[in-house]
Amino acid sequence: MKSFAIIGTGAVGGLYGAWLVRAGFDVHFLARSDYGHIKSDGLRIDSVRGDFNLPHVNVYDTVKDLPKCDGVIVSVKTTVNDILPGIIPHIVKDDGVVLVMQNGMGAEESIAQIVGPQRVFGVLCFVCSNKIGPGHIHHLDFGHITIGQYAPDNKPVGITEKLTEIGNAFSHANIKVSLAPDLKIARWKKLVWNIPYNGLSVVLNTTTDTLMQNKYCRELVKKIMQEVYQGACCCGCGFDESFIDQMLTYTDSMPPYKTSMKIDFDFKRPLEVESIFGTPLLLATKAEATLPLISMLYCQLKFLDEANTRHAKP
Amino acid sequence: MKSFAIIGTGAVGGLYGAWLVRAGFDVHFLARSDYGHIKSDGLRIDSVRGDFNLPHVNVYDTVKDLPKCDGVIVSVKTTVNDILPGIIPHIVKDDGVVLVMQNGMGAEESIAQIVGPQRVFGVLCFVCSNKIGPGHIHHLDFGHITIGQYAPDNKPVGITEKLTEIGNAFSHANIKVSLAPDLKIARWKKLVWNIPYNGLSVVLNTTTDTLMQNKYCRELVKKIMQEVYQGACCCGCGFDESFIDQMLTYTDSMPPYKTSMKIDFDFKRPLEVESIFGTPLLLATKAEATLPLISMLYCQLKFLDEANTRHAKP
Repeated sequence: MKSFAIIGTGAVGGLYGAWLVRAGFDVHFLARSDYGHIKSDGLRIDSVRGDFNLPHVNVYDTVKDLPKCDGVIVSVKTTVNDILPGIIPHIVKDDGVVLVMQNGMGAEESIAQIVGPQRVFGVLCFVCSNKIGPGHIHHLDFGHITIGQYAPDNKPVGITEKLTEIGNAFSHANIKVSLAPDLKIARWKKLVWNIPYNGLSVVLNTTTDTLMQNKYCRELVKKIMQEVYQGACCCGCGFDESFIDQMLTYTDSMPPYKTSMKIDFDFKRPLEVESIFGTPLLLATKAEATLPLISMLYCQLKFLDEANTRHAKP
Repeated sequence: MKSFAIIGTGAVGGLYGAWLVRAGFDVHFLARSDYGHIKSDGLRIDSVRGDFNLPHVNVYDTVKDLPKCDGVIVSVKTTVNDILPGIIPHIVKDDGVVLVMQNGMGAEESIAQIVGPQRVFGVLCFVCSNKIGPGHIHHLDFGHITIGQYAPDNKPVGITEKLTEIGNAFSHANIKVSLAPDLKIARWKKLVWNIPYNGLSVVLNTTTDTLMQNKYCRELVKKIMQEVYQGACCCGCGFDESFIDQMLTYTDSMPPYKTSMKIDFDFKRPLEVESIFGTPLLLATKAEATLPLISMLYCQLKFLDEANTRHAKP
């Protein structure tokens, strides 16, 4: 793994891409609205792990200009995943891989149809990071990732040679990496955090710390986490239930944090409701799980998303 | 029943009180913030059933000035019910009754401790009415009421002579009246409407029509109504489940309506969360019902209410 293409140079793609650049990898950023700014001024990272600037980075606004890379990191919002079939084939080497650095579920299935299932990996980022300006990223806390290989037939692939190779690349960039033998379990575990905090932060117009300080919401967050756990178990993706308490402790230790879904909402951008709520609910329902709290949160978010983006620019 | 005292001259107390005045009853209004305006200009009712003005009404700002009445109508918000022990004994005749014209549950129990259980009645108003200015009420739709007698021991009292007499007074004022043999059932039925619409209108910042037009929320409203029904059944207060569809049809036929809880929220007034959500949830939990959607709505409202009134004037 020597070269990476980053599709989506935002809070997550910009941060991890910049760390890969700093570690000496050959990184190529695809940007849209920030292209002009990044082209002239590069990337600026304000990070708890050390600020740095990359005044000159390889940035592109058209797919055809990017070279083919060993790894393509998908870090756009899942709401625009329909652009991927027009991009990925042009920028991934024949033996290259696609790393789905997105929240929620369903993206790997679609990308597997583009490049074949053996070349798709999921990357879960446990990170507090916001884009605060064009090419300007504020990394508030954490940063470790979990990587797993996509398994088309629901049978976990385990720790393959390729997975280890990808993990080593990130480790080389000083990123703490866990390798997951079962990507589906890893994705359910990530939802233990994303579902309550992304959902409630939008519905209740608030940040993680305020949710945790209110005794009613703290209890509600925990109950929603327990529902995610139930959904995972019903889908054959069970894990140690103590992970719930770990996530509560993890959130308590965070600085006051505005979730990515809340930021999207505030900017009147479409919310990742389907990937984070809709698809997991569909899977859980097929497995005969009943998840009333998550279903209610889904309905509330669908309503708010529709009202919020009704008059948005196309 | 010849004389009435109205505690709280707002959207509900002002409207029903004015109708009683117009029918020739001797009505005495207790007002707080609107006292001066009502004293000089009276009450103005803009109603789908006919506009009218009452330029001179008996209005008071101090309890000691009110005469003792046959019926005391309690139409303040449940959030200020702690003022009632200081008011009711001074304005109810020895053989007079108290009519609790409030939403939710728990008020009759407290008032029974003031005047004795046999003199307490509940009045449920199915009405769309808003106060749009001092002494100025806008009645948008409906107006029928259900009256039931309080039963301290959970055994319904049935249709007593006194209940019939009270009903006749309202009927005489051209108000459509149903007499409920079991007040507890009547209160649960009222919650079938209040819990979903009051709750969701605040959490989702919207009106009844917009909720009904969104397919996710419409389904959610129905599911919440079904939970209220479950709670009622577990508490031994079952009714015909078709009432749920009646309430959906009833709401479809309403003009776009801002619920009383949403109005309170917009004015940064305390919400009636405990009487409409907290007390019914407590009763249902004691009866071993599990009501996840209503519990979640309760937590969301507690959070929003606390944030909303934190900086309110005392």
